[in-house]
Amino acid sequence: MRFATFDDGTLDGRLHLVSRDHRHALDASAIAPSLLAALQAWEAAEPALRELAAALDAGRAAGAQAFDPARCLAPLPRAPQWLDASAFLNHGRLMERAFNTPPIPDFDTIPVMYQGASDDLLAAHADVPLPSEADGIDFEGEFGVVVGPVPMAATPAEALAAVRLVVQINDWSLRALGPREMKTGFGFLQAKPSTAFAPLAVTPDELGDAWSDGRVRLNLHVALNGERFGEPNGREMNFGFGELVAHAARTRRLAAGTIVGSGTVSNEHRAAGSACLAERRVIEMLDLGAARTPFMKFGDRVRMQARHPDGRDGPFGAIDQRVVRFERHAQGAR
Amino acid sequence: MRFATFDDGTLDGRLHLVSRDHRHALDASAIAPSLLAALQAWEAAEPALRELAAALDAGRAAGAQAFDPARCLAPLPRAPQWLDASAFLNHGRLMERAFNTPPIPDFDTIPVMYQGASDDLLAAHADVPLPSEADGIDFEGEFGVVVGPVPMAATPAEALAAVRLVVQINDWSLRALGPREMKTGFGFLQAKPSTAFAPLAVTPDELGDAWSDGRVRLNLHVALNGERFGEPNGREMNFGFGELVAHAARTRRLAAGTIVGSGTVSNEHRAAGSACLAERRVIEMLDLGAARTPFMKFGDRVRMQARHPDGRDGPFGAIDQRVVRFERHAQGAR
Repeated sequence: MRFATFDDGTLDGRLHLVSRDHRHALDASAIAPSLLAALQAWEAAEPALRELAAALDAGRAAGAQAFDPARCLAPLPRAPQWLDASAFLNHGRLMERAFNTPPIPDFDTIPVMYQGASDDLLAAHADVPLPSEADGIDFEGEFGVVVGPVPMAATPAEALAAVRLVVQINDWSLRALGPREMKTGFGFLQAKPSTAFAPLAVTPDELGDAWSDGRVRLNLHVALNGERFGEPNGREMNFGFGELVAHAARTRRLAAGTIVGSGTVSNEHRAAGSACLAERRVIEMLDLGAARTPFMKFGDRVRMQARHPDGRDGPFGAIDQRVVRFERHAQGAR
Repeated sequence: MRFATFDDGTLDGRLHLVSRDHRHALDASAIAPSLLAALQAWEAAEPALRELAAALDAGRAAGAQAFDPARCLAPLPRAPQWLDASAFLNHGRLMERAFNTPPIPDFDTIPVMYQGASDDLLAAHADVPLPSEADGIDFEGEFGVVVGPVPMAATPAEALAAVRLVVQINDWSLRALGPREMKTGFGFLQAKPSTAFAPLAVTPDELGDAWSDGRVRLNLHVALNGERFGEPNGREMNFGFGELVAHAARTRRLAAGTIVGSGTVSNEHRAAGSACLAERRVIEMLDLGAARTPFMKFGDRVRMQARHPDGRDGPFGAIDQRVVRFERHAQGAR
């Protein structure tokens, strides 16, 4: 199943199913008003949702409408928790060199993960207002999972079995603010503004063979202002999502709808390119003596689309976002 | 106004008003179903709530019932964000010595703050299940504020004006896990299990003169297993809550219901005692050569009650919690 969320004026938005060919969407709010509500009552909701999805794909669903990904909110506009790992060893080691921070202890044996804000998750196509170009505006292309309820002290196998949905993420980052926050030991806060999500959250079966061992074996094609930036594959995670979710649940239970991210997708093979500017910049420093690629300016646009290695589109749709100058009265509060 | 939340089977619980003498509670869900809903529609809800609170205090409210703080959930069982500072310079400097971590840069000019989990906030009187005594179980007595919507880049004055409620907090901490997580730079995660709250969240006017300059000038009386542990006063924050909330909103808007904590209350004058075990332990190390006070064992109990310097009770009620061994099937998932 492929889910999208449309704006109906509520904080959680309205649940829709999307056909496999992404041509049609169908209001599924009679089964659960929102995707969060469906996750909170998954055992009861799933059979009815699967039946409706089958009817939609067969062209038998009354009320199907043309699907416009630009109308989508984040699949979960707010989530109980948003936790983001740094599970690609290659990226982590490069970032230590970029930030000139000491090696993270046990990086390859204990997951590294930060707690992010989960109350204001951004749509795939909405402009991203940020206060200052001087903050070092960067994107981070990632994969993630959404879980059902996970008890405290769950094992990695139990945690993997609790995965309900797979998502594609742009974890916006402000690089000029990150190193100072890391040095406090309290972790990222100002350095991590609101995070964005591709239009569709999908059940793992939608990935076919590309979902195995708790990893998303898709290439994440990233383009900056229309130019190819990289297409690293999700297979090289040094921890699978089962291990990451179990790490998050070590001393707390996780509520249904909790999102756990992979961290920036990164491959050892340099020809794959990168999924964030900071990684390319540190490679430039190492190879060329200086970073040449600037951080983003207002008006710049990043596009992220997962594809199978054979070229077929992945199931998430595309993230396509433009960074704009924050205008106090344009965004307002919430 | 003094608010409490009772369990009605929903994630947000049911809104109640509590009389100034804490003898009576009144269902206020006809005005807003939950405290979170009231905060999301504060301008509309506040006048009606104030009218009802006045009737309750005057003994004119139909439907008032005896108030039992042991029945309360956290005022906000889930919140959009929970952000916790370390705003008592005295505590921060002692903790650096306790953890043997390098001095936090700019500690006295830029607030230090971590993002916590906000989906499972604990009641004042419920047992606290934790997986292992070896994790170094500790309490942290704090004050905090709950804000209305705060726009990105709000000034400290604007942020202070957005404060709707004041709360009292026990920020449970696992000290054996903290230093490793600080060294990753990604901040606390496993070291910060679910956080607990005193039964009542109150509007700032309930504090009288004890609310000024964005600080809570009350003594936080802490007792461990019935013995006095300390009663530090909230006045020595090196940043007020206006500065803390503005720090949190520098690169993101804050949703109504966001909670910002002070960090462990701590006073320079040692006779005030401490509001967490780690601080007492480091003082013992400095004064006596070794820590003598152990971390908590299962069955241990901590009590926290704010009082005015003249001895009158503060408005929040008491936190009174027992730590118990986590039993997988007792807690379950959520």
